[in-house]
Amino acid sequence: MATIININADQRSTDDALEELHDFFADDLVQVEATLSANLSSAASLIPEVSDHIIGAGGKRLRPLLTLSAAQLCGYQGTRHIMLAAAVEFMHTATLLHDDVVDDSDLRRGKPTARKIWGNPTSVLVGDFLLGQAFRMMVGAENLAALDVLSNAAAIIAEGEVMQLAAMRNADISEDNYLRIIDAKTAALFAAAAEVGGILAEASPTTIDALESYGRNLGIAFQLVDDALDYGSVNRVLGKNTGEDFREGKVTLPVVLAYRRGNENSRNFWKQAMQATDDNADFEQAVAYLRSTAALKDTVARATHYGEKAKDALALLPPSDTRTLLIRLADFCIARAY
Amino acid sequence: MATIININADQRSTDDALEELHDFFADDLVQVEATLSANLSSAASLIPEVSDHIIGAGGKRLRPLLTLSAAQLCGYQGTRHIMLAAAVEFMHTATLLHDDVVDDSDLRRGKPTARKIWGNPTSVLVGDFLLGQAFRMMVGAENLAALDVLSNAAAIIAEGEVMQLAAMRNADISEDNYLRIIDAKTAALFAAAAEVGGILAEASPTTIDALESYGRNLGIAFQLVDDALDYGSVNRVLGKNTGEDFREGKVTLPVVLAYRRGNENSRNFWKQAMQATDDNADFEQAVAYLRSTAALKDTVARATHYGEKAKDALALLPPSDTRTLLIRLADFCIARAY
Repeated sequence: MATIININADQRSTDDALEELHDFFADDLVQVEATLSANLSSAASLIPEVSDHIIGAGGKRLRPLLTLSAAQLCGYQGTRHIMLAAAVEFMHTATLLHDDVVDDSDLRRGKPTARKIWGNPTSVLVGDFLLGQAFRMMVGAENLAALDVLSNAAAIIAEGEVMQLAAMRNADISEDNYLRIIDAKTAALFAAAAEVGGILAEASPTTIDALESYGRNLGIAFQLVDDALDYGSVNRVLGKNTGEDFREGKVTLPVVLAYRRGNENSRNFWKQAMQATDDNADFEQAVAYLRSTAALKDTVARATHYGEKAKDALALLPPSDTRTLLIRLADFCIARAY
Repeated sequence: MATIININADQRSTDDALEELHDFFADDLVQVEATLSANLSSAASLIPEVSDHIIGAGGKRLRPLLTLSAAQLCGYQGTRHIMLAAAVEFMHTATLLHDDVVDDSDLRRGKPTARKIWGNPTSVLVGDFLLGQAFRMMVGAENLAALDVLSNAAAIIAEGEVMQLAAMRNADISEDNYLRIIDAKTAALFAAAAEVGGILAEASPTTIDALESYGRNLGIAFQLVDDALDYGSVNRVLGKNTGEDFREGKVTLPVVLAYRRGNENSRNFWKQAMQATDDNADFEQAVAYLRSTAALKDTVARATHYGEKAKDALALLPPSDTRTLLIRLADFCIARAY
């Protein structure tokens, strides 16, 4: 049940924002998909097989869309945005493969993970291959400023993952430290994906800053809503893949808030649940604590704050269809939570 | 017991070749070490800690030395070779961290691996961080041709690792297929390390080709000698860290040759030993089979072939101290086997 927010005169709900963006960039996306496939071919047949499982499954392509949108918004006329958009998706996919190894995950969005099917060694190495291909493709785009931004993002993402590992299973991490982690591990790639679109188009520093800021804030909002959805939507609907974070002992913002706001009993519950290495932790009890402390609702409120910042970041840019679509996308990211 | 091969009038043994190279590039190496340290600092304290374990342990710095030597050989006057040399070492270190996870290794050169001390998740993520930093540093050197070569190498290395994984524990892999694997997983980085030195110096295509070829052949020779040394030197001296490959079921050229040349009994032995997941496989029996089939001696003969190719690759370059040192380095790589 999505909140209806009208941006355009056409009164469409934000449900459609991602779909609209896909339609708007349909031609570019076909080329991105072709570039992804072309760069998966290898003498090692495991590589396309494993990559297909995770890339071919048809993700939202949110990050590549940021690159395409940003380039279009800045009037870019060339073809290099396709290569960078595909490289960004490869970086993201490499992260997913390694994350599942790090988190010992058997399921991702309800599907068996690559590491569950092919084992950890394959997931580590195919992730490394995708990272290598991503760099190769970025270099192929022949733009040093864009390379600078994307290689920076690669190091920062890994740094964020290490920070998360160090903080793992600690329910008493501060909200600010948790935000630092997701800023690095999630938002840095959203920011870079948008920024390089502007860089390719040789946009003004102000415009490039605006795109970077839009991407970063959108990334944080997106991650926080994902965090919330693992425990069901604000309107109490439990999605089909809920509880994955919880069962892996992954401390996310809902847990951080519920822990801080809880009494001694609930704090003990969270500590034990986050430390548990079996699958028997009481998910229903967790959801109950999240409801009673308003932790889910307020996680979405925090996400809304970043979504609003993302939209305001675009305010200096001249109105255009693409700008409208990006604003609607920010609303969509939040609306998913309801 | 090293074979004495005299290249210079000064009659020094090849034992000294690596040390001489270190002395010759002492000033550059100090800067490389400083660059390595500077790029390990991070808000995530695990990163310098783990990296120190593997980088600070003071490796041979063979790959960075190739970049430094190649740049010097081509008369390079700038400072960017330092950054590229350090980036190459980071790429190498990232590979080691991930390899140990993939191979489930507890020991590397007789020391506990990072994954043994800090666990697989940390090794995967710190490896990713080092790879990201390597790219960041390469981009900082602002040379697209060098970036092209190094990003290519990154993808090829991972591809080689995947090929090795697919061939793992198969004693009946062909020699050619084994060579394809080490060409990708080891020699590609040696080749790239040397090549980018020439690229920075804007050397002629012939010179750059020569450097690439030197690095590639040296890399293969180096890997084959390493393969042999895991079972002891040709002169029957068992080093202190022998048997690591064997106990991990890692099929290397000595095994490939011994398997092909063996009778039914020894083939069964190798099949079972390579499949074994415990540490009880009979290492003494393995060494005996390698001796009786001359597999160790001939692995070193194959390595010598590549060492000679490496030396001939440099023949078109004008004589210089650095060229002499690189030729001696190739001899040193082989002499280690005796």
